[in-house]
Amino acid sequence: MRYFSFAVLVLVALVSWTAEEESELRVNGDRLNQRFIDLAQYGENPAGGMDRFAFSDADVESRPFLKESLEAAGLVVHVDEAGNIFGRREGSRPDLPPIVFGSHTDSVANGGKFDGPVGTLSAIEVAQVINERKITTLHPLEVVIFTDEEGGLVGSKALIGELTAGALEQVSHSGKTISEGITAIGGNPALLENVVRSAGDVAAYIEIHIEQGRILDSGKVDIGVVEGIVGISWWDVTIEGSANHAGTTPMDLRNDALLAAAELVIGVNRVVTSVPGSQVGTVGKIRAEPGVPNVIPGKVEMSLELRDLSKAKVDDLFKSIEEEARAIAEKTGTTISFFPSETSTTPSLTDARVRKAIVGSAKKLELSYKLMPSGAGHDAQSMAKIGPIGMIFIPSVDGVSHSPKEYSRPGDIENGANVLLHTILEIDQGL
Amino acid sequence: MRYFSFAVLVLVALVSWTAEEESELRVNGDRLNQRFIDLAQYGENPAGGMDRFAFSDADVESRPFLKESLEAAGLVVHVDEAGNIFGRREGSRPDLPPIVFGSHTDSVANGGKFDGPVGTLSAIEVAQVINERKITTLHPLEVVIFTDEEGGLVGSKALIGELTAGALEQVSHSGKTISEGITAIGGNPALLENVVRSAGDVAAYIEIHIEQGRILDSGKVDIGVVEGIVGISWWDVTIEGSANHAGTTPMDLRNDALLAAAELVIGVNRVVTSVPGSQVGTVGKIRAEPGVPNVIPGKVEMSLELRDLSKAKVDDLFKSIEEEARAIAEKTGTTISFFPSETSTTPSLTDARVRKAIVGSAKKLELSYKLMPSGAGHDAQSMAKIGPIGMIFIPSVDGVSHSPKEYSRPGDIENGANVLLHTILEIDQGL
Repeated sequence: MRYFSFAVLVLVALVSWTAEEESELRVNGDRLNQRFIDLAQYGENPAGGMDRFAFSDADVESRPFLKESLEAAGLVVHVDEAGNIFGRREGSRPDLPPIVFGSHTDSVANGGKFDGPVGTLSAIEVAQVINERKITTLHPLEVVIFTDEEGGLVGSKALIGELTAGALEQVSHSGKTISEGITAIGGNPALLENVVRSAGDVAAYIEIHIEQGRILDSGKVDIGVVEGIVGISWWDVTIEGSANHAGTTPMDLRNDALLAAAELVIGVNRVVTSVPGSQVGTVGKIRAEPGVPNVIPGKVEMSLELRDLSKAKVDDLFKSIEEEARAIAEKTGTTISFFPSETSTTPSLTDARVRKAIVGSAKKLELSYKLMPSGAGHDAQSMAKIGPIGMIFIPSVDGVSHSPKEYSRPGDIENGANVLLHTILEIDQGL
Repeated sequence: MRYFSFAVLVLVALVSWTAEEESELRVNGDRLNQRFIDLAQYGENPAGGMDRFAFSDADVESRPFLKESLEAAGLVVHVDEAGNIFGRREGSRPDLPPIVFGSHTDSVANGGKFDGPVGTLSAIEVAQVINERKITTLHPLEVVIFTDEEGGLVGSKALIGELTAGALEQVSHSGKTISEGITAIGGNPALLENVVRSAGDVAAYIEIHIEQGRILDSGKVDIGVVEGIVGISWWDVTIEGSANHAGTTPMDLRNDALLAAAELVIGVNRVVTSVPGSQVGTVGKIRAEPGVPNVIPGKVEMSLELRDLSKAKVDDLFKSIEEEARAIAEKTGTTISFFPSETSTTPSLTDARVRKAIVGSAKKLELSYKLMPSGAGHDAQSMAKIGPIGMIFIPSVDGVSHSPKEYSRPGDIENGANVLLHTILEIDQGL
């Protein structure tokens, strides 16, 4: 009986801690932001940009620092065969799969200090606070630092068994193939099957990231609650007219492929902005043939990209664009053809329970928040294939990313980490 | 008295020949068209296109044939220091400058059999008929075959003293510099000053050429009476917006340089077609930066070309285009800058008396005709700087030029040569 009473007392004490003190729980903002300064030593170029692209010397040299940080957070460190770094802390229920949270630390060439590190260093800080407060979670917790996110979600694709043999042989920005790069950071491309996790192996995956537009920053909103990662549909578009002498061909006898292309660029913009929503459409690439000032272009090749959280909406937009194209082709005496690209992706929606936990945490912390899509790809979209995901965005000044000018304020980073902390504790109980 | 009576009789006989027989005078169409077949042997490629670009082996090898043809026409042949071939026939008035007529025989790479040869071979045929009929002209007649027309009016520029030292050092399509090329065809670049003619040195210059649009062919008109060679104004246009992530930047927060460029391409077309006339405006070159499907273009560089017989009209059109650009820049949040090119040319108008003679000849020959501009450049525009010029266009099927598909019907060529013949005899008397 005494033992039982003691157990009850302990339980009551724990519960009362959860209810009162947990709501006061905060990350250590100074420690968190100091780690950005420490990590930036690896790969900062003279102009202040980051050259810590995957498998570079800077990437390799940063790893002992990252492992030490994970260990300082009380985590058991493990590098898997894909080079992904994991730091794990057991929960009280060995039968439950882990809650995984983290991001990446590789940059694009001449990138910034926040795309990737915000998610990674916040995850380490959150784990460290949970460890310091000796909080026992039900689920195991795993902080993950994924391999080569910028080069095509390499580490997270490996984790879900979707890294192809062809992708392994592609040459990364470091000059090494992906396969060579994975070996250089302690992985083993021959044993990638060891890392594969399946549906049910992850309780939830949560990632903080800087926004990569200006939505939060321009709206002065603290937290973005990501509804999903948009699907990306790409087409190669070919417009064929008649190349002809620019001096001798009267205006009314022309089949100018560039004039038709210009109408289509405007048509894409008109269609995409004609319905409410956060869908985007872009023509980023254009090339006219023969491409000299004194010949009417006979052919134009351009790209078309549509992104939205809803595949059906993208399909509808594309149908309208095709209609516009038919009318333009008729009017300009050209032919317009669309060739869908195999690199298109489908949308990855976040989990409603995780979103609810993020919203609840933001409210508890008295932070403003906004539901929004992620227009860019993230490792979370890989993880969505094997379990529920959530993403927390924080403001990026002027929406800049992939640039030395990328900047997130220390206070905004701290807010994001606090939301992550409370979200994890919430879903640990709720899932 | 008897001598006087005889002289009067001879004079009456001559005058009556002029009045009656001259109106029946025609070129030998079979001989003329046979020379196209003969000349095409020099430089025809297996696909049927012509590779007789200036200073090529084919160009060099064709010259004996051309000289023999000139000699067969009763002309005294002379190659000047610029490599221009002249065939001369004296007139009855040694104090008068020559009437010069001809064209060129060099082609572009993989060009056609008519652009150049139509003017050259017609000129030889006309001289040959005049010689066969023993017609005595007042003016000396000179058939000219200009050097390297396609490479920048090289021979005719030399003739008016405007071939620069810089131009001589440019590498032509043959691989030789212009200077080396001139030497290879029997000229002497060090003595180019010997070839220079000044205002008054040429009574008139007349050139037949294929049309290079579809105006005559589609309108079923026999003869184009060229009003002038259009001036060509070129600008490099730069549109600057903001490069940004195509997924994360909402449509209303974009400064898309390509969207602005598309509006401008359409604006150029609208401005150019908004007023009556034969002016043309073309955007032939376009390049977006960074030029990838998933980045909103931050910068676009494109060309702008305007052509018209009136410099004032081109200036007005450009002013309207600048106004359009200002409105587009304002609307799209971009900046648009125009940089005029130094290679722009001014219009060269044909001489009213020569035009009248061409029109009169066409009427006499019962051929339909149309006043029209030359949208392309020709050696005649050099010659316009030292004397009156005229140009006669003949139909080109589908308006094709600079292509193996270039084709002018034998009958059309014969019509053009007959108009040239009568025009020369008319202006010989009239100037």
